[in-house]
Amino acid sequence: MIRVAIVGATGYTGAELLRLLLSHPEVEVTHLAAHGRAGMRLSEALPSLSGLLDLPLEPFDAARVAEAADVAFCGLPHGASAPAVSALLEAGLKVLDLSADFRLRDPAVYEAWYGAHPHTELCARSVYGLPELHREAIAAARLIAVPGCYPTSAILCLAPLLANRLIEPKSIVIDSKSGVSGAGRTPSPTTHLPETAEGIRAYKVAGTHRHTPEIEQELSSVAGEPITVTFTPHLAPMTRGILTTAYATPRAEALGGLADGACQDLARSFFSGSPSVRVLDPGRLPDTLFVRGSNFAHLAYAVDRRASRILAFAAIDNLVKGAAGQAVQCLNLMFGLPEGTGLGGAPMFP
Amino acid sequence: MIRVAIVGATGYTGAELLRLLLSHPEVEVTHLAAHGRAGMRLSEALPSLSGLLDLPLEPFDAARVAEAADVAFCGLPHGASAPAVSALLEAGLKVLDLSADFRLRDPAVYEAWYGAHPHTELCARSVYGLPELHREAIAAARLIAVPGCYPTSAILCLAPLLANRLIEPKSIVIDSKSGVSGAGRTPSPTTHLPETAEGIRAYKVAGTHRHTPEIEQELSSVAGEPITVTFTPHLAPMTRGILTTAYATPRAEALGGLADGACQDLARSFFSGSPSVRVLDPGRLPDTLFVRGSNFAHLAYAVDRRASRILAFAAIDNLVKGAAGQAVQCLNLMFGLPEGTGLGGAPMFP
Amino acid sequence: MIRVAIVGATGYTGAELLRLLLSHPEVEVTHLAAHGRAGMRLSEALPSLSGLLDLPLEPFDAARVAEAADVAFCGLPHGASAPAVSALLEAGLKVLDLSADFRLRDPAVYEAWYGAHPHTELCARSVYGLPELHREAIAAARLIAVPGCYPTSAILCLAPLLANRLIEPKSIVIDSKSGVSGAGRTPSPTTHLPETAEGIRAYKVAGTHRHTPEIEQELSSVAGEPITVTFTPHLAPMTRGILTTAYATPRAEALGGLADGACQDLARSFFSGSPSVRVLDPGRLPDTLFVRGSNFAHLAYAVDRRASRILAFAAIDNLVKGAAGQAVQCLNLMFGLPEGTGLGGAPMFP
Amino acid sequence: MIRVAIVGATGYTGAELLRLLLSHPEVEVTHLAAHGRAGMRLSEALPSLSGLLDLPLEPFDAARVAEAADVAFCGLPHGASAPAVSALLEAGLKVLDLSADFRLRDPAVYEAWYGAHPHTELCARSVYGLPELHREAIAAARLIAVPGCYPTSAILCLAPLLANRLIEPKSIVIDSKSGVSGAGRTPSPTTHLPETAEGIRAYKVAGTHRHTPEIEQELSSVAGEPITVTFTPHLAPMTRGILTTAYATPRAEALGGLADGACQDLARSFFSGSPSVRVLDPGRLPDTLFVRGSNFAHLAYAVDRRASRILAFAAIDNLVKGAAGQAVQCLNLMFGLPEGTGLGGAPMFP
Repeated sequence: MIRVAIVGATGYTGAELLRLLLSHPEVEVTHLAAHGRAGMRLSEALPSLSGLLDLPLEPFDAARVAEAADVAFCGLPHGASAPAVSALLEAGLKVLDLSADFRLRDPAVYEAWYGAHPHTELCARSVYGLPELHREAIAAARLIAVPGCYPTSAILCLAPLLANRLIEPKSIVIDSKSGVSGAGRTPSPTTHLPETAEGIRAYKVAGTHRHTPEIEQELSSVAGEPITVTFTPHLAPMTRGILTTAYATPRAEALGGLADGACQDLARSFFSGSPSVRVLDPGRLPDTLFVRGSNFAHLAYAVDRRASRILAFAAIDNLVKGAAGQAVQCLNLMFGLPEGTGLGGAPMFP
Repeated sequence: MIRVAIVGATGYTGAELLRLLLSHPEVEVTHLAAHGRAGMRLSEALPSLSGLLDLPLEPFDAARVAEAADVAFCGLPHGASAPAVSALLEAGLKVLDLSADFRLRDPAVYEAWYGAHPHTELCARSVYGLPELHREAIAAARLIAVPGCYPTSAILCLAPLLANRLIEPKSIVIDSKSGVSGAGRTPSPTTHLPETAEGIRAYKVAGTHRHTPEIEQELSSVAGEPITVTFTPHLAPMTRGILTTAYATPRAEALGGLADGACQDLARSFFSGSPSVRVLDPGRLPDTLFVRGSNFAHLAYAVDRRASRILAFAAIDNLVKGAAGQAVQCLNLMFGLPEGTGLGGAPMFP
Repeated sequence: MIRVAIVGATGYTGAELLRLLLSHPEVEVTHLAAHGRAGMRLSEALPSLSGLLDLPLEPFDAARVAEAADVAFCGLPHGASAPAVSALLEAGLKVLDLSADFRLRDPAVYEAWYGAHPHTELCARSVYGLPELHREAIAAARLIAVPGCYPTSAILCLAPLLANRLIEPKSIVIDSKSGVSGAGRTPSPTTHLPETAEGIRAYKVAGTHRHTPEIEQELSSVAGEPITVTFTPHLAPMTRGILTTAYATPRAEALGGLADGACQDLARSFFSGSPSVRVLDPGRLPDTLFVRGSNFAHLAYAVDRRASRILAFAAIDNLVKGAAGQAVQCLNLMFGLPEGTGLGGAPMFP
Repeated sequence: MIRVAIVGATGYTGAELLRLLLSHPEVEVTHLAAHGRAGMRLSEALPSLSGLLDLPLEPFDAARVAEAADVAFCGLPHGASAPAVSALLEAGLKVLDLSADFRLRDPAVYEAWYGAHPHTELCARSVYGLPELHREAIAAARLIAVPGCYPTSAILCLAPLLANRLIEPKSIVIDSKSGVSGAGRTPSPTTHLPETAEGIRAYKVAGTHRHTPEIEQELSSVAGEPITVTFTPHLAPMTRGILTTAYATPRAEALGGLADGACQDLARSFFSGSPSVRVLDPGRLPDTLFVRGSNFAHLAYAVDRRASRILAFAAIDNLVKGAAGQAVQCLNLMFGLPEGTGLGGAPMFP
C-alpha cells in the first residue's frame, strides 16, 4: 500500500482527495495536515466523513509527514505552497502540488503573474500533471504540478485541434463557466448564496486571470508555436463543474476538407489510451451534470460553416478531473499503477 | 387608460406582462385569452396573482378581443402567432407580437429558418421592437415584432462597437448564457430540475439556433454591411437572466488609439436617451442578478490588449427586457407615453 | 411627500426598503446611512440600483437624519439598534426598527434571550408592528418594532385558530423553512453556496431560537392564556421565502364539528380588511414561489382526521412581508395612508 | 460474481443502482430492461455512463432476465411492478422490488391506499427491506420490498424512541423535506426548474400521502401497539436528499429522567451493528448535504424541555439509502455478503 499524506486536508480539494483515496485499492491515508482546522476532529471539519476515517488533523510539519507517508498531496494556496513543497521534497517525499506554484516552467512568467517565486530552483524539476499530455514525464517525476481546473478543460479540448494544425493559433477564444466550489471553501461576498445562486457573471476578463499563462504554455507546446488566447472565466450558479466553450478559426486549407465528425475522430485518436477522456459522438454536447463527481472529461466539437469557425467543448468536474482526481491519476503513474486505478467511479447522476 | 388584451396570458411572458401592466399607470388589462388553460380561473393558472385581478381566461377570438381592448400582446408560439396577429390587426387592434413570426424582414430568411411563412404580406408592415434602435418606427407602427431574448442582449452590447466601426464585422463570437425560463412553461427533460439545477450546457450550436438571423439582421443594419456571427446559447442553472459575452477583433486602426473607457464612452453616447440601458463604469462587469425582475440592460466592455480582442457584455432579465418589459416599452412608444412608463421598478435583489 | 431615511441601507432589508420605497407614491427617500459601506457609492454597494437613486452613503448621525427626514427605518443588528433608535426618537423622528430590540414587551424576557436591554424605558412605548393584529396601535405610535420573519409567518397562520379556540394551546409545533437571505448579507460558512445550495438542515432547535419568545408573546395575547411552542427553523437552499407548517391538536369539542373549509372561513373572517393576507381555498397549499418579491402572505389549512390534528400553513417573502414590506405597511398606517399603499405589486413569478 | 439484472434501468433508481453496482466487488450487471427507452443505447439514456457499460436496453421479458441473471432489481411504478415481480419470481429469480407493491403486509391496507392488489398471494412472502429492522428475514427471503424514501428516514429516527418507550405513540408529527429527484425522471409542472428552484411547498398533507401506512406499519411493529402519525411531505428546491424532523411528546415518566445525550445513547445502542447509520453527537444536527451520494443515514436528537417535546432528525440521500443503496444493502444480505459491501463510498461533499 502507498502511504499517503494530505496537506490542506479540509479544503475542498483535500476533502475530495479523501473521498477518492478512501476507495482507492492501493492507497492508505496515513496523515492529515490542516492549517486553520488543526486540532479539530476530522468529522467536525468534514461531517461527510463521519465514521469513515479516524485521523487527527495536525499542524504542518514536513518531518512528521515524512515519517508517516511516502507521498504527499499539497493543497495550499499559491505562495504558501512552494516552501511546504520544498520541505517535503527535502524530507524525501514525492509531492503532488495542487497550487499554481510549479505549473509555469518559466520563472519569469510566474513572476509576471504571481510575483517573485520563492523556489525557482524547483521549477525545472516539476512536471505539469496533465497525464494526457505528459504521461511519461509524470511517471518519472518526484514533483508534480497538478494543473488548474480551467486549464485542464481548455487544454484537453483544444490540444487535438492544434496538434493536427486545424486552427489558426491566433484565433482562440476560450469562454469558461465554473461552479462556485472553484473559489474554495472560504466564504466571501461572491460565494454568498443569496448573491450567487440566481445570477451568472464574468470575472477577471481580458487576459487578467492567472490561469491564462498556464493555458498558453501548454497549448504553445502542443502547437509548436507561441499562442496567445483570450480567456474569460464565468461564475455559474452551481456547486461543481466547468464547461469550456472554445472558438477558433480553421486554417484556410482545413475547413473545406473537414468532414462531419472529423474533429471527433482526430480527438479520439489523440486521446487513445487515455481512460479519463470521452469524446462524444457528433451531434452530442457535454453537460457538467454528466461528469459530476467523476474523473471523466467529456469533449465535443462542432463546425460553424456559415461563420467559418470550429467550436470545441469540454465538461469536467472542477474538483475531480480539475484537481483531486487528476492528482490521483498522476499518483497512479508515479507509482506504476494503471492510470485509472481508483478513478473509475461513475458520475453521480442526477 | 389604454385597454389591453393579453393573448397567451398564462405562459411566462403573459404572466410577466400581467405583473408589469398591473402596476402601469396608464393601462387597464381588460381581456385575457389562454389556449390550454381557457376556462381555468386566473389564480389557479397563476397563483402569484391571487386576489390581484379577476378576469376570466377565455379562448382566443379576435372579435372578442377587439371589443374589449385597443391593443393586444400576443404571446403564442411562432407559426401559431401569425394567423392570430393577422386576425387581430384586421379587427382593428394594434398588436405587439412576442413570437418570431414578424421579426425577420426578409420572408426568404424566415423560410430558411422556420419554414413557410403564413402571412408574408404582414412582414413588411412590422417593426422590430427594439426601442434603442427603432424608437421612431415603433411609435408609428401598428404591428411590433418584439425581439427575442438572446438578440436583445447581443444587439445592445455590440451595436455601439459596430456603429463606431471599432470591430471587424467577420470576427464576432457571441457566447450567451440563459436561465431556464427562456424555455417556456412547458416541462421537458431539459427543464426538469434534477437534470438542470446542477449542470450547464450549450445547445443548438454552430449556427443552428433560430435567433441567429435576427441578430445578424440587426447588426448588419447597424454596421451597414452584411454580418455573419457565431452564436452559442447555453442553458445555465437558474430561472431568469441572460448574460452575453461577445468577442470581436478590433479593426487594425482601432486598437492602438483605444483609450481605457473609450468603449464605455461610445456606448453611453449611443444609448443617450435610452432609459433602460445602463453602461457600467470601466472595470465593472454585469451580473444577471443585478437586473432581475427589471427592464434594465447592464452593458460593459473590456479590451484584451494581449490577444487583440474587444469584449462586450450584456446582462438582461430574459422575461423583462428580453420579452414582456420590452413589449411594454414599445407599447408606451406606440401610445405616445414616455418610453419608461411603468418600467422604472428596481431589480429584485437579492 | 413623507421624507424617509434608511439607517443600514445596504443590508438586504435596506436594499429591499429602497426597492419598495422608490416605487411608493407618497414617499421620498432623502437620507441613507450605512455603517460598513459609508462613503461608498450606492451603485457600488447595490449595483441593482445603478441609475435609480443618487444619494451618498453616510455614517450614522441622528441629527443629520433628523434634518433630512421625518421618519427613519432602522435596520441595524439587535443590541446596536437600541441606542440608534433612542437617538432618533430624541431627535424628533418617528422610527421603524427592524431589529429585535423592541419586540418583546417584557424586558425580563428580552434579557433572558438577548442579554441586558440598553433602553428598557422605550420597551413600553414600542408597538409590535404586525398590522393584522395591532393596526390601531401602530397608527398611533412613534416607535414600531417590526416583527421577525419567522414570527410573522407563524403568528399569521395560527392566530385565527387560537382566537376561535379551535386548538389546544399546549400542542403547537411550528416547523419553518427559510431561504438563506434571512441570514443577512455577511458571508459565513452556512451561507457559502457550495455548502448551502444542495442541502437542507435544522438549526437552533428545541427552544433555542430567539424568535421563539416573540411568537409566544403574540400567540398568548391572541389566545388569552400563556402559550409555549416548539419552534424549529430550517435553512432551505433558496434565496427568499419562509414556509411555515404548524401542527396543533384540536380541542376535544372542535374536531367533530369542523366542516371542511371551516378553518379557511374563520381565517378569512379574521383577516377581513387585511389587504396583505390571502387565505387559499380548501385543497390549495402555499408555495413561497408564489409570494416572492411581494408583501402578500398566503395562508392555508388542512385537517388530519386520522391523527386528529389541524395543520396551518403560511408562505411569505422573508424580506418583504417578513421585514421591509411589513415596515412600509406600518409606515403607511403611521402616516394615515391606506395600509397597502406602494405594496400592491404582484409577486415575481417565476 | 452475482449476476444482476435491472428492470427499469433508466429511471433515477435504475441509474443509481448502476452507479453503485458498477463499483460493487461481487456483482456483475448482466441485463438491463427499460420500458420507454428500450432499444436506445445506454449512453444516450444515461450520458453519465458513457464508456462505462455496454449493454443493450431491452424490453422486459422475465424469461430473458432469468437466463442472464440470478437476481433482479425491479424499479417499475406501483401497480406495474407486481405482475413483473410475479413473473420474475416464477422464472426462478430473487427479486428486490423498489415499488410500493409489496411493502404493506396487510392487503386491505394496500387496497385502501392504492386500489386492488394484483398479487395478494405474494404479500405474505415479501420482507420489508429495511435491514436495520429486518436483517435476518431479509437474508432468508426471495422477495424484498425495498422501503420508500420518506419511511426510511422517519422509521430510522423514531424507532429507537419507540423501542425504548420514550414517547407517546399518539403524539408523533413527521415533517419531511425531500429533493426533487424523489418525484422521478418524468418532467411535470412540479419539477419544472423555474417553478421549483426557488420555492418550497408541502403536498399531499393531512394523512393523504401513500407513504403514511408504511411508516405506521413499521413504527407500530417496533412499538408493539398501533400508531397513527401526522406525516407532511415537502418539496425542497434541491436535487437529492430527505431531511425528516419528527416531533413527539415524551411519556410522562420519561422526560424528567432524560439525561442530555440519552436519546443519542439509546439510538447508538439500537443501531449497533448497522454500518449505514451514524448517530451524531449531542448538539449536532444532520444536513442532507453530508450524506449526498452515500448510503449513510445521519440521525440526531434534541429535547425541548420548555415545551416538553422530543425532536428526532434524519438525513438520507433519497436515491441511495432511500432507494438504490438500501436495495443493494438487502442484496448483500440475501447473498451472504457483509451488509455494507460496495456501499462504503464517502458522500460527495460539497
